[in-house]
Amino acid sequence: MTASLAPSHDERMARRLAASAQRGFDGDADRARFHDWFADVAQRIYARTEPVPLDALTGWVRDPGTGDIRHNSNRFFTIEGVDVTLPSGPVTHWDQPIINQPEVGILGILIREIDGVPHLLMQAKVEPGNRNGVQLAPTVQATRSNYTRVHGGRQVPYLEYFRVPAVRCVVSDRRQSEQAAWFLRKRNRNMVVETTGDVPVQDGFRWLTLGQVHELLAVEDLINMDARTVLSCLPAAGVTVPEAFTSPASAFAVTLRRSLSPQAGARHTTTEILSWMTEVRTATDLVVTRTPVNMLREWRSTSERISHHTGRYFSVIGVEVVAGGREVARWCQPMIAPVGVGVIGLVVRDIGGVLHALMQACPEPGYVDVAELAPTVQCIPGSYDVLPGAARPPFLDLVLGAAPEQIRFDTTLSEEGGRFFHALNRCRIVEADIDLERPDFRWVAVHQLADLVQHGHYLNVQARSMLACLYSLARGGR
Amino acid sequence: MTASLAPSHDERMARRLAASAQRGFDGDADRARFHDWFADVAQRIYARTEPVPLDALTGWVRDPGTGDIRHNSNRFFTIEGVDVTLPSGPVTHWDQPIINQPEVGILGILIREIDGVPHLLMQAKVEPGNRNGVQLAPTVQATRSNYTRVHGGRQVPYLEYFRVPAVRCVVSDRRQSEQAAWFLRKRNRNMVVETTGDVPVQDGFRWLTLGQVHELLAVEDLINMDARTVLSCLPAAGVTVPEAFTSPASAFAVTLRRSLSPQAGARHTTTEILSWMTEVRTATDLVVTRTPVNMLREWRSTSERISHHTGRYFSVIGVEVVAGGREVARWCQPMIAPVGVGVIGLVVRDIGGVLHALMQACPEPGYVDVAELAPTVQCIPGSYDVLPGAARPPFLDLVLGAAPEQIRFDTTLSEEGGRFFHALNRCRIVEADIDLERPDFRWVAVHQLADLVQHGHYLNVQARSMLACLYSLARGGR
Repeated sequence: MTASLAPSHDERMARRLAASAQRGFDGDADRARFHDWFADVAQRIYARTEPVPLDALTGWVRDPGTGDIRHNSNRFFTIEGVDVTLPSGPVTHWDQPIINQPEVGILGILIREIDGVPHLLMQAKVEPGNRNGVQLAPTVQATRSNYTRVHGGRQVPYLEYFRVPAVRCVVSDRRQSEQAAWFLRKRNRNMVVETTGDVPVQDGFRWLTLGQVHELLAVEDLINMDARTVLSCLPAAGVTVPEAFTSPASAFAVTLRRSLSPQAGARHTTTEILSWMTEVRTATDLVVTRTPVNMLREWRSTSERISHHTGRYFSVIGVEVVAGGREVARWCQPMIAPVGVGVIGLVVRDIGGVLHALMQACPEPGYVDVAELAPTVQCIPGSYDVLPGAARPPFLDLVLGAAPEQIRFDTTLSEEGGRFFHALNRCRIVEADIDLERPDFRWVAVHQLADLVQHGHYLNVQARSMLACLYSLARGGR
Repeated sequence: MTASLAPSHDERMARRLAASAQRGFDGDADRARFHDWFADVAQRIYARTEPVPLDALTGWVRDPGTGDIRHNSNRFFTIEGVDVTLPSGPVTHWDQPIINQPEVGILGILIREIDGVPHLLMQAKVEPGNRNGVQLAPTVQATRSNYTRVHGGRQVPYLEYFRVPAVRCVVSDRRQSEQAAWFLRKRNRNMVVETTGDVPVQDGFRWLTLGQVHELLAVEDLINMDARTVLSCLPAAGVTVPEAFTSPASAFAVTLRRSLSPQAGARHTTTEILSWMTEVRTATDLVVTRTPVNMLREWRSTSERISHHTGRYFSVIGVEVVAGGREVARWCQPMIAPVGVGVIGLVVRDIGGVLHALMQACPEPGYVDVAELAPTVQCIPGSYDVLPGAARPPFLDLVLGAAPEQIRFDTTLSEEGGRFFHALNRCRIVEADIDLERPDFRWVAVHQLADLVQHGHYLNVQARSMLACLYSLARGGR
């Protein structure tokens, strides 16, 4: 065996993806063909979700001693409680139920070249928590219980591309955190894999260019969270290589494209950004202690649900799901149902010709490592009406009150519909001419975000989702 | 306030460090001046370490129920037990005592320009576990208990440069793991900070160029572990920029310098290396459960010590320390005393003109995240004599049996003398013409290691130490 160097396929892949990003729908007729297909699938696959008292969830037990909720198999996930102390936070002490799902699942997008252009295999997927039933998901979206078939369902399609090293060329593969306000240390493996072999397209799946997926990100509640986080992990150059874009573009898109180059400058060096994160992670005395659900002081457990005594934040509810076109036809499960629609806002600004996003190093109870970078704003505004003024999230009013000409992206999108019931966020990218920094906020250049997301545990799921949305604007005309 | 980009001082710092790396001792007389200074300090500061039964450690209690050992203040660290299941390992199940030290300390090197060349402020520091008393340490080496002065000692010198954001320019700042066979999730903050102000040199401290420090790495048991891990975090370009080296060099040094450039190729792309680590971290079912020391099945606790029933691996012992020139003059503490001298071996090879190191993705019980990259070999050979043949570490015989012309570095160095008693490793870098890979080993280009160490939790402390040793060879003549 001779020793040789790997071809630098990362860079070639990025250039090929740039070509894919440039290819949107070929006019209204082409776009309509996608929506017709999607509507057709949505008619054939469905999930009917009915509320069921937590005490009556078939297959699940509520421990009489602790009040914790677990599956009979001890797999999937459990509902537990945590007590949280955060001396530096606006709220310094609270308790809450939380989902403990220690298994690392796979969120994967399969790529294959069609007519010389890389295409992404996307899936029309139904989830019980989606308010609109079907959304566009990655090729594979499977918990470990899922793909080891604990519930005896059918095999997860295309899983083999993400499991067998021999047949895949890895474009991206790392574990990333999920909603750390509701999940205790949950991580999923975010994968992008390319294949050159024949891939039969199963019902409910469709090849799309990156440009088409980017267009669809602007549609309300269409691209699901799992797809968005995987899209954020694509090589940034894949949405960037400026010469790949020939269409006329807005000034914003031109700045954005330039800002995706690793050679673009930055307000703070990456060393400084990492040092700031190290400082926050070291200095924040976040203490998260497991507590039985029955011992949570601020929450009321009934046979029906677990809710905060104020009625705010979220509830743990039970549902019965009857689904067609999914692995299992009928099941019960607990879900987290947030109270109200959230706001996720990314404030961006041109600094010295390079687009920067105002990021916060945000401690949350469920992170593996104290804090990750979050978008400028991430909250459910209604939750803050009862708190003292200082607790109102900074920049929330700036994001909500932005003038139309400042708003670059404005779409309502859902969080993961497998665990969260109707968890909607208004996702906004706002260009603002502010230069304020606070100890817990920093301007981070877009290419630095693209660099950090190549590693796990730097960007939280909301930040990754917004990065995918931001990428989608690089192709945009006026 | 105007918005402007940061100067790219990372790159300038790297070039300035390259100049520092090039400047070794100015002949034998200059070298002798260092050793005279070091010998003089070593006479004035000292630590006399006497064995004391674990039951008689002043200030420490051994919990009668659990057998765990903790300080009266509940600070510093505790000795606890863990039960470890590792189905994929050569040994699939064991238990052991382990040090739990949740506080994140600071290991920091202060840099200042002297006569146009950056110098590192190094400290002659005594530690109770050092077999030779004094070793060369970073500017600051302090646990949080240390610098918040729980034990009422004097203030840690130069700490302010690493604590006050206003006066420092950060060259490097991240948390890194430490010995995960003996520490449960211990991490220290590895920092390099530059200042431009006046820095009075206290007794026991000395400014050295990076080249001088690199020369001293070849001296037996002189540069301590804390210094080595911080040195590994310097920008690789700081030891690399080829044009900075004008001295004649061996073919090995020339290859090494070329291999430090991020533009050099690699056997596997960094994406592939990260994917492999993700695979190992996801697929390894490492289960580490806290167990009271009294419940450890394989270990014997006496009033004197805690030892494995075979007498192998290590013991937990007690010591009383009387020290001058340290923060506290007299104290007791438990320590881990390994049985026998270890071997840390890094096998390197020129692949396509680029130097690669054979790294293993090695699960250990104390990592925050299952596995990190370790050198080719990392073991105490004597521990393996009792185990079945398959358990003998791969490549150990290759490293031990290397011909003299293959050996690029060969020095006995110590692990941290604050917790480990006489923990010595033979550290060898061996150039070998093998092309073998196993599922748990990969060839990683040197510039990829330099890239990975810019983030926490990829390279374990032994790998970082060997990387610092490898860097020291870039300047080398024949």
